[in-house]
Amino acid sequence: MIQDTLINDLKLKWERLQLAMRKAGADACLLTVDVNVYYTTGRIYSGYFYLPAEGAPRFFVKRPNGLAGEHVEYIRKPEQIAEIFAAKGIKTPEKLLLEVDEISYNDYIRLKAIFNPKEMGNASTLLRTERMIKTPWEIEQFRISARHHALTYAEIPSCFRPGMTDLDFQYEIERLMRKNGSIGLFRAYGNMDIFMGSILAGENAETPSPYDFALGGGGINSSAPIGANGTPLKEGISVMVDMAGNFTTYMTDMTRTFSIGKLPDLAYRAHQVSLDIIHEVQQTAKPGTPCANIYNKALEMAGKAGLSPYFMGTKQQAKFVGHGIGIQINEPPVLTSRSKDLLSPNMVIAIEPKFVLPDIGAVGIEDSFLVTESALEQITHSPEEIINLL
Amino acid sequence: MIQDTLINDLKLKWERLQLAMRKAGADACLLTVDVNVYYTTGRIYSGYFYLPAEGAPRFFVKRPNGLAGEHVEYIRKPEQIAEIFAAKGIKTPEKLLLEVDEISYNDYIRLKAIFNPKEMGNASTLLRTERMIKTPWEIEQFRISARHHALTYAEIPSCFRPGMTDLDFQYEIERLMRKNGSIGLFRAYGNMDIFMGSILAGENAETPSPYDFALGGGGINSSAPIGANGTPLKEGISVMVDMAGNFTTYMTDMTRTFSIGKLPDLAYRAHQVSLDIIHEVQQTAKPGTPCANIYNKALEMAGKAGLSPYFMGTKQQAKFVGHGIGIQINEPPVLTSRSKDLLSPNMVIAIEPKFVLPDIGAVGIEDSFLVTESALEQITHSPEEIINLL
Repeated sequence: MIQDTLINDLKLKWERLQLAMRKAGADACLLTVDVNVYYTTGRIYSGYFYLPAEGAPRFFVKRPNGLAGEHVEYIRKPEQIAEIFAAKGIKTPEKLLLEVDEISYNDYIRLKAIFNPKEMGNASTLLRTERMIKTPWEIEQFRISARHHALTYAEIPSCFRPGMTDLDFQYEIERLMRKNGSIGLFRAYGNMDIFMGSILAGENAETPSPYDFALGGGGINSSAPIGANGTPLKEGISVMVDMAGNFTTYMTDMTRTFSIGKLPDLAYRAHQVSLDIIHEVQQTAKPGTPCANIYNKALEMAGKAGLSPYFMGTKQQAKFVGHGIGIQINEPPVLTSRSKDLLSPNMVIAIEPKFVLPDIGAVGIEDSFLVTESALEQITHSPEEIINLL
Repeated sequence: MIQDTLINDLKLKWERLQLAMRKAGADACLLTVDVNVYYTTGRIYSGYFYLPAEGAPRFFVKRPNGLAGEHVEYIRKPEQIAEIFAAKGIKTPEKLLLEVDEISYNDYIRLKAIFNPKEMGNASTLLRTERMIKTPWEIEQFRISARHHALTYAEIPSCFRPGMTDLDFQYEIERLMRKNGSIGLFRAYGNMDIFMGSILAGENAETPSPYDFALGGGGINSSAPIGANGTPLKEGISVMVDMAGNFTTYMTDMTRTFSIGKLPDLAYRAHQVSLDIIHEVQQTAKPGTPCANIYNKALEMAGKAGLSPYFMGTKQQAKFVGHGIGIQINEPPVLTSRSKDLLSPNMVIAIEPKFVLPDIGAVGIEDSFLVTESALEQITHSPEEIINLL
């Protein structure tokens, strides 16, 4: 069931997970959350992936029909996993890790009963931690996404027509993304729904949202209260475009700011501070840099510029300036003052110092960076200045 | 924090939930899953909704800032709910319901500890059951969605250009949906991801998918293995369009079949059987009809027509012919042979007898129906025949 081009990548991931499990005294993990199944098998299927701390992984598949390969077993229900273990004489785990931060309470109880292990542990944390450090194949996926992301952003001005609302503009950009290969789905960890990304124009940028994304916006429906809300794109406002780089399963994250005509001077000044923060971080951060320091530096630079009241929002301010990216848009580490994480080689992070200016809108940029052995390598590229759409 | 137009609808829902809780001997439910928060408060926020079996509901909000109203309390973490209860002298529940099929194991443990109740119960089942019977306001939302859905489908032929692939076609339909007011998000219960709906052309309709949707398709990425896959829209194949009616939070579900030129006779014959099944169900089903009977009748009619090998798929056949719809696309009841549910007034269901024909593609239709006091009322309307796009 595994593509040949993927097998080395998967083996590398399995070895890392096995090493981490042995360090934690765990005997196995049983995974079923879609993003973790994708991470460990290279595809999404309905069923379970079992990885022992030593030995070969096993694939328990409910759907789709027709997958074949070594250690692939079809099941109708998870209880059959116990029967298969018994029939094959496979040792059952004494300490089992389940995705306790993601699977439901009832699923947990059911899966735990399969093996009745002596001890349980957290596979969500294991996977979130291991997924933080990207493999060479994963990094190549980001580079593919970044190329399509840049191509899409270069075409954004062609989507604009005078008289549009932010929504009209977004619909054309969404179509462009799809034509450039966007898979559409925008995966986030936790209860956070956003559709394809966010366009924030004018005063809508000040509206707080329920989600822990960098900025808000009112949205068009109280069941989807984020992003564009029908704001007319009238002269003198900014339009921040933060649409997903979901052109592979590994999403790049990039934000650029456009304007309808000329903006007040404050907008250009704040935008420049955003660029300055990114350039400062890029020049100083490297493996070993505490993520908290990056946030604190950004906050300090915003403060020195007298822009604290506008930094990462006004009525509601996000308390981070960046985050890991991957299969989900909000992977660890988080660049926030409370973070205990240090940058490590092969992390991929987005840095997004943004300002929300009353009566103008949001300004600033966001780019995605690979942490190399010695520095940050920018992987998303697009002109950084505020682009006038008129 | 509640809109005036919604308050009567919410009061009706609270009363129904309270009645069901009293019947079940439960003292309260604490909800946090986005669709249930929307259902009970009319908006999505990050936080919790607490409904006692008797008395006023309480809203515990983490984000967004700025919500105000009676019994609205801002918290940073759920443990503060216990402090608020103690400070206000509010009675804590002895039997508490949590969303045990949806919230994570770790969230369950944390929320349970707030009250340490004597007994726990299942709020997921409570909500899934109560949400099955729609309120007048909810039914009006479906009618709005249905109107936009019909307008969108009427414009579908204008999206077609010779030489397109299924994906090119889908991108144009997605844009049309958005321009007609689609909120984009397509909510499903469980681990099921689909983007905006499904277009199935030619032999791609046979490809099994991991999800429990009616049909499959290979998709364009192994992390999103469903739907259109780049199939060229060449003469002699069918194109089934099953795009979401997500024009309000309450989604209508409607499928229509198009063709590229003329199809083999089998396609028209099977399509007619799909129409016959829907018309038969519409003429006979009413409150009290077992959902299993509807599935069995459809299976029987497909069998009599000699079409069993094609019914609801070929390589993988879905074992249902319809399902409840609402905030999520797959609400109860399920029209399947194992169902114990009976149709009841104010259920809203989709019926989708479909056939997958090798070398041709999928045919058949799907419509959404309101169960009235005496019959089924069709709420999605669009021409039923196979429409030739050439």
